Amino acid sequence: MDEKGREKTGYIPGERPLTIYLDKKELVTLMTMGGAPEALVLGYLRNQRLVPSIDMIESIQVDWETESAAVKTFGNTVNIEEKTSRRVVTTGCGQGTVFGSLLDDIDQIRLSDTAKIEQSAIYQIVNHIRTRDSIYKQAGSVHACAVFKNCGEHAELLHFIEDVGRHNAVDSIAGLMWLNQQAGEDLIFYTTGRLTSEMVIKGAQMGIPFLLSRSGVTAMGLDMANQVKLTLLGRCSGEHYLVYSGVDRLISKAADVHSA
Amino acid sequence: MDEKGREKTGYIPGERPLTIYLDKKELVTLMTMGGAPEALVLGYLRNQRLVPSIDMIESIQVDWETESAAVKTFGNTVNIEEKTSRRVVTTGCGQGTVFGSLLDDIDQIRLSDTAKIEQSAIYQIVNHIRTRDSIYKQAGSVHACAVFKNCGEHAELLHFIEDVGRHNAVDSIAGLMWLNQQAGEDLIFYTTGRLTSEMVIKGAQMGIPFLLSRSGVTAMGLDMANQVKLTLLGRCSGEHYLVYSGVDRLISKAADVHSA
Repeated sequence: MDEKGREKTGYIPGERPLTIYLDKKELVTLMTMGGAPEALVLGYLRNQRLVPSIDMIESIQVDWETESAAVKTFGNTVNIEEKTSRRVVTTGCGQGTVFGSLLDDIDQIRLSDTAKIEQSAIYQIVNHIRTRDSIYKQAGSVHACAVFKNCGEHAELLHFIEDVGRHNAVDSIAGLMWLNQQAGEDLIFYTTGRLTSEMVIKGAQMGIPFLLSRSGVTAMGLDMANQVKLTLLGRCSGEHYLVYSGVDRLISKAADVHSA
Repeated sequence: MDEKGREKTGYIPGERPLTIYLDKKELVTLMTMGGAPEALVLGYLRNQRLVPSIDMIESIQVDWETESAAVKTFGNTVNIEEKTSRRVVTTGCGQGTVFGSLLDDIDQIRLSDTAKIEQSAIYQIVNHIRTRDSIYKQAGSVHACAVFKNCGEHAELLHFIEDVGRHNAVDSIAGLMWLNQQAGEDLIFYTTGRLTSEMVIKGAQMGIPFLLSRSGVTAMGLDMANQVKLTLLGRCSGEHYLVYSGVDRLISKAADVHSA
């Protein structure tokens, strides 16, 4: 009912629990819209660094009747107890879980020294997201992530995922990239969510040098981006954006004029 | 730098890790803006149902130098291992952790049968949030939660908390209410975040019958609200809003006319 007492009909996004079992041990229950459950599970295992390589995974079986995803590794070689003993709850909008030593290893990440992004590609991405048919437009209350191939003056969409939580969306993308053995060097990552430390870490882990958002940045997100040399672009809307870090990767006529 | 290559100066919200130790056992690390750390820790323990009563807590000592909050209970009576053995990662924007049996006990929650909310109070709350000085206005990238006393035709602000994560904000409010031994029956809760299942559960746990947001609702958020008879108002902006559940608690001239 609206403020005038009129009944309204509309869409709201669904969410359902999906409990991940890794070699028959219960790991975690995710709340998800459920559009790409296998990719979500893969990406969760990857981003939480619970499974070091996709080659270790034999199968994933999703069963919505029992709301479960059973993951089987070759030879049951993953030691879950050890990896889940430390919990770091990161910002996100919620209190996202990132188990273990994720922060410890960020030093070892080196993003591409040669990657560049052109202003026309940025505008094309922002425009693609704005005009795209999406669940968000129908129902609101979801976050989207997308990954584009960086083709110089333009950008080409590879994956687009919406979910009730932005971490689910980014994890699903990470799962798809893992499955396709896609390196991140030539990619551009877009998220509707804020540029927090966790988003930067996940982007860096995927090896993607560019992270775009229509939202802003947090202090630790910016610190981490500077540390791993990731180019952060926030407040992307229409033909406006702000570059928070890694500005040397940007190719733009306006910037050339300005720095000349 | 903006899209024209002009350097820009502005604020971004800070975030810092705060590791909670409960009776010297490491529990979790939260990323927080750090405005109300004691309230956040209290609310986290309350909302994750790790400590059943505030009377069990002897002290909290926050030390930013070591980025830690040491919580001491009387007689070390809280069994953490048992309570943290099951992890449910809920939606939020991120993958918020809610340990254990939170969902199991939702059946036992009964919200006030007699509480009503007047349209003028809704408008006053929305207007208060809109015009209030806030970190969001200066820096963006934060969420706010507030709790108002329901005084019939108007509403009176009790607490307002901003943090990088919306769950931190709601947990801090829960901590303040616990500390002040405030019942929820006469209160109205406002959040800038979406009305997800976790928000509804947290609101219901605090005994608050009204949950307002400028954002929308998810399907499970709505299901839970119907289950515990919580009144959900979303898309609150200017003089517009949508009532998703518990519409019988609403007092509005328009609604009277419509249903007459």
